[in-house]
Amino acid sequence: MYNFTPPVTRLIEELRKIPGIGRKSAQRIAFYLLRSGKQDAVNLANAIIDAANNTFFCSQCYNITAVEPCEICIADREKTKICVVEEPFNIYSIEKTNLYKGMYHVLHGHLSPIRGIGPDELKIPGLIKRMEKGEVEEVIIAVSPTTEGNATAHYLSDILRKFKVKISRFALGLPIGADLDYVDSVTIARALEGRTEL
Amino acid sequence: MYNFTPPVTRLIEELRKIPGIGRKSAQRIAFYLLRSGKQDAVNLANAIIDAANNTFFCSQCYNITAVEPCEICIADREKTKICVVEEPFNIYSIEKTNLYKGMYHVLHGHLSPIRGIGPDELKIPGLIKRMEKGEVEEVIIAVSPTTEGNATAHYLSDILRKFKVKISRFALGLPIGADLDYVDSVTIARALEGRTEL
Repeated sequence: MYNFTPPVTRLIEELRKIPGIGRKSAQRIAFYLLRSGKQDAVNLANAIIDAANNTFFCSQCYNITAVEPCEICIADREKTKICVVEEPFNIYSIEKTNLYKGMYHVLHGHLSPIRGIGPDELKIPGLIKRMEKGEVEEVIIAVSPTTEGNATAHYLSDILRKFKVKISRFALGLPIGADLDYVDSVTIARALEGRTEL
Repeated sequence: MYNFTPPVTRLIEELRKIPGIGRKSAQRIAFYLLRSGKQDAVNLANAIIDAANNTFFCSQCYNITAVEPCEICIADREKTKICVVEEPFNIYSIEKTNLYKGMYHVLHGHLSPIRGIGPDELKIPGLIKRMEKGEVEEVIIAVSPTTEGNATAHYLSDILRKFKVKISRFALGLPIGADLDYVDSVTIARALEGRTEL
């Protein structure tokens, strides 16, 4: 059976390890990178090495950063609020709204007993340590409204209760621009329960 | 406006250059690679560098190869047939059928006046040179049945006619497992025209 030349096969195998990239996508990416010129390939490899060597987790919020502490932890922001997110790129989505001026804490995942991810696999001990300093007044839990996200939110609100701070979670409801016909009934139920007075 | 730390931003920009990878996918891939450990990132970068440094186009068929001539050109195959494909990974798809034992020729694209890709941007001169040796008896044009693929096929059949060889093209018709209800009418028309007697 014909196979690609070994360096290409190895490249395809490495690309396939990335979640969301299947065999066909990996092939297309590999051959795109190996077109004549190859400058894109070299640039990409250098960017990967540079990012791998020069970034690390912020010791306070566990965001990915090239400086310690990270740009957000060191900025002049409201130290009394912590927004808990699952992944570093969630910070970017929230910052885009320009509405939140507090701190962040990145869990790096969510609780998932089925995949063996418990509280100790997440950055929850680091969050507890921040809470113990007593500066925080509100924790906003911004995990995804999925089964695993809900479990994570409940676990967090349980263990944070002893700090006597306000604990909130992102509102559930209709996304902007949604067509009611196409919104699932659980979302509609939540939108109804959380209706706001006009 | 908050942005990712510079090495991460650069990595995301490099990933976005890959066709089919948008902003969100690039972010997810970048953060996947920069999780704790980073071994996947280093392996991927090394695989890219290795493939970029150790592969080149076969001087005969323009397949991507690590040896000259490539594994297929050097193998004991029917030298009288050349199958013309657009991309190196098309060879893999055809080899999987185990039905074709001839040679290949990779064009590295298709004619596309709108993007400024004419015959000289493709590996057509190399194909002409192979034809001039007089060994070839059949050219099978295996480009995609798209507008640009069709233009490429017509151009090729025109310039190859003077070599007085058999020129064929992959059959058009229903894909296996297709539901007639969901097949477009051009495909149905081609399937009807090319119907085979039972």
